[in-house]
Amino acid sequence: MSAHTQQLATFLADLRFEQIPDAVLARTEDLFLDWLGSALASQGAHPIPLFERYAAQMGPSEGRARILVNRGSSTAYFAALVNGASSHLVEQDDLHNSSVLHPATVVFSAALAAAQDLGKSGPDLLTASVAGYEAGIRIGEFLGRSHYRIFHTTATVGTLAAAVAVGKLLDFDRDQFINLLGNAGTQAAGLWEFLRDAADSKQLHTAKAAADGLLAAYLTKDGLTGAKNILEGEQGMAAGMSSDADPTKLSDRLGSRWALAETSFKFHASCRHTHPAADALLDVMQREGLVARDIAKVVTRVHQGAIDVLGRVVVPQTVHQAKFSMGTVLGLIAVHGKAQLTEFRDLALTDPEVSAFREKVTMELDSEVDNAYPARWLGRVIVTTTDGRTLKGTIDDPKGDPGNTLSREELEDKFRRLVAFSSARSTDEAGELIARVWNLRSTRTLEQFS
Amino acid sequence: MSAHTQQLATFLADLRFEQIPDAVLARTEDLFLDWLGSALASQGAHPIPLFERYAAQMGPSEGRARILVNRGSSTAYFAALVNGASSHLVEQDDLHNSSVLHPATVVFSAALAAAQDLGKSGPDLLTASVAGYEAGIRIGEFLGRSHYRIFHTTATVGTLAAAVAVGKLLDFDRDQFINLLGNAGTQAAGLWEFLRDAADSKQLHTAKAAADGLLAAYLTKDGLTGAKNILEGEQGMAAGMSSDADPTKLSDRLGSRWALAETSFKFHASCRHTHPAADALLDVMQREGLVARDIAKVVTRVHQGAIDVLGRVVVPQTVHQAKFSMGTVLGLIAVHGKAQLTEFRDLALTDPEVSAFREKVTMELDSEVDNAYPARWLGRVIVTTTDGRTLKGTIDDPKGDPGNTLSREELEDKFRRLVAFSSARSTDEAGELIARVWNLRSTRTLEQFS
Repeated sequence: MSAHTQQLATFLADLRFEQIPDAVLARTEDLFLDWLGSALASQGAHPIPLFERYAAQMGPSEGRARILVNRGSSTAYFAALVNGASSHLVEQDDLHNSSVLHPATVVFSAALAAAQDLGKSGPDLLTASVAGYEAGIRIGEFLGRSHYRIFHTTATVGTLAAAVAVGKLLDFDRDQFINLLGNAGTQAAGLWEFLRDAADSKQLHTAKAAADGLLAAYLTKDGLTGAKNILEGEQGMAAGMSSDADPTKLSDRLGSRWALAETSFKFHASCRHTHPAADALLDVMQREGLVARDIAKVVTRVHQGAIDVLGRVVVPQTVHQAKFSMGTVLGLIAVHGKAQLTEFRDLALTDPEVSAFREKVTMELDSEVDNAYPARWLGRVIVTTTDGRTLKGTIDDPKGDPGNTLSREELEDKFRRLVAFSSARSTDEAGELIARVWNLRSTRTLEQFS
Repeated sequence: MSAHTQQLATFLADLRFEQIPDAVLARTEDLFLDWLGSALASQGAHPIPLFERYAAQMGPSEGRARILVNRGSSTAYFAALVNGASSHLVEQDDLHNSSVLHPATVVFSAALAAAQDLGKSGPDLLTASVAGYEAGIRIGEFLGRSHYRIFHTTATVGTLAAAVAVGKLLDFDRDQFINLLGNAGTQAAGLWEFLRDAADSKQLHTAKAAADGLLAAYLTKDGLTGAKNILEGEQGMAAGMSSDADPTKLSDRLGSRWALAETSFKFHASCRHTHPAADALLDVMQREGLVARDIAKVVTRVHQGAIDVLGRVVVPQTVHQAKFSMGTVLGLIAVHGKAQLTEFRDLALTDPEVSAFREKVTMELDSEVDNAYPARWLGRVIVTTTDGRTLKGTIDDPKGDPGNTLSREELEDKFRRLVAFSSARSTDEAGELIARVWNLRSTRTLEQFS
């Protein structure tokens, strides 16, 4: 067995609530609130009701774990499944840059379901979630950029991240974590091919990652053994699904580097690959006092991953596609000053000014931006004005990144907007949920998260 | 979308019971009985009770689908999960050579659960199972040998094969099958790494393939869309998990070649890679009237895959490892004339004559055998007798292969042995189950398979 995998498993087994810095615990609460809002915002939106229906068909009619969007309950497996599908839909959940992993949707969906099932406390949930983030982020970094080219890291690595969080709630020792990684890693799946068709697989991926991770943990608890070297072995994940894996990432500064705290919040309601350019455009427009009609052309200087993911969408046909259209996102920013969920729903496809602006936007590969990625997501735009000037917009830390993070007030505003978007909860209920999340560190029972 | 995937989906949508040749339907019944026996034989054996317990924890306490090993019931998802785990454990289920796919454990586990849930008939079940076999085998051939080096084809391709069978029970049209392949293919997972540790992943793989395939089909029925080119697309299965994919295999002689009928039954209770040599040894021993003590040395001339899979086991420590030990298998054959489940359980690890024979057996790569593989599994052994003769054993169609298949009488004997091995059912019940399987073509309800 590899030393790196062993070190990771030992760290996970030894992790205690008391050793996690207060700032990391506070950030975990921030991320949890952000996740909760993302899940609630999807209420009623396709394809979430399909997952609710599946849970009703295949699961018991009630259980100890809560299904957020419909206020129902089920066993932990189905709660993880539905909440995992829900919390990634509106593209407002968090992202860790260098691993290109969206941790919240997989980690919290599995961890909350298991914590409710097992009667665990707020500190237990936070500790388990930190374990899931720390492991998932390092495994994502380990598998590298080659993995992300074909595989949806949040689906594949997400299965392991979710499993680790649940394993921590089950008080796993080192050997159980080794078996757990084997049992989760051999279930890791999720291909980017669906993007071409704007198919519903993203929700299937996060739903299954959360639920499969939970399944792996419960079976491991009961004694199901797994491969001891699933990450680095000759027939393991890296062998099958990566060409640039770096095992040292698995044990990178365990216990001193808190990778969770590097996680970014999403400010705009679009694909994260559009955010640096959106902020860079805002930068130049605000600095120069420009309005949309002053702009003749925008060249966004981007990393290759942005071109790979966004390049397929030329004229968006759906709101979801609009979130992957660089031109549409920049059009909303230029014309309306923001690109939140309501702008996407009400304006992205129908506002002629936005469509017209979309045609002015192109993407070009930029070697500085590409080299910095994925550790940093640099925003660089070159704007040509209608009066012939060439202006540069530059931002090194997009809004929501650790260097430019959201305050608790901004997070509360975002949460309230997300909840109001779907009307999943009343204003009062949203306020109560906020208070409960800020109180997680001293919460004994998690039944109220429903 | 690719023409080959389209043709496959069209074939699956158009397939009707009436167009399937009688011999193929009869063979499907043969394979179903063989699967049923394999599932029942695992009752009580680790790790099957873990899956039963998981189903009880996460599922409802009863449902329309039957869990074979414990006579219980649940929803279709959990029945597929437990039956999928059960039916591959004793290594007695079928194998399709050129795809290196074990179709029964994934196809029938999903199809029976869905058919019971949906109130379908015997002909419906048979038609759906044929669809699952025809699709799964072709997808396995498409992904090629490179896929099998790292990925457990029965896990990955099994997810699609199971999904197709359930999709057929749900009366999918062509477009639904396209979406279904997308939804199943993006969940396809399963790595060989577990073999190094003799971990329990094989059962997890078949359980999850059957259950995930069923999940994909139920969600597709309700409208979950999937990637339209999951098999051949730039970020699809072949792109991510194969280096020698051949798209023409996907549509190879659809409707005229019945790949299901090429499937082999397992006669010996060991890894299939040992069977050609076992039969070749039986050939030379019977022809020359040899007994074990006449033999000084056996060189088995094998394909590379046999060396890859069997080469790790030198002195087996468990019954499961003994099934992957060429020397042990040939020892049982030489000393006891057969290598069935009871010989493995009672003699493989403890009989000194078998252990002594094991030391006389070696494997050597044979280019003729290797070139014929995986389309044909040729058996070649060179025996040196204690009196100095060199004798060759040769078999071109191992017992159970389509060219040397099992009769219904032999299949019934095997079924009764499998059921008696675990005492999962009484002798009378075994007889009733046999009669029911032979009557599947005119069965209206499948409730009795329990």
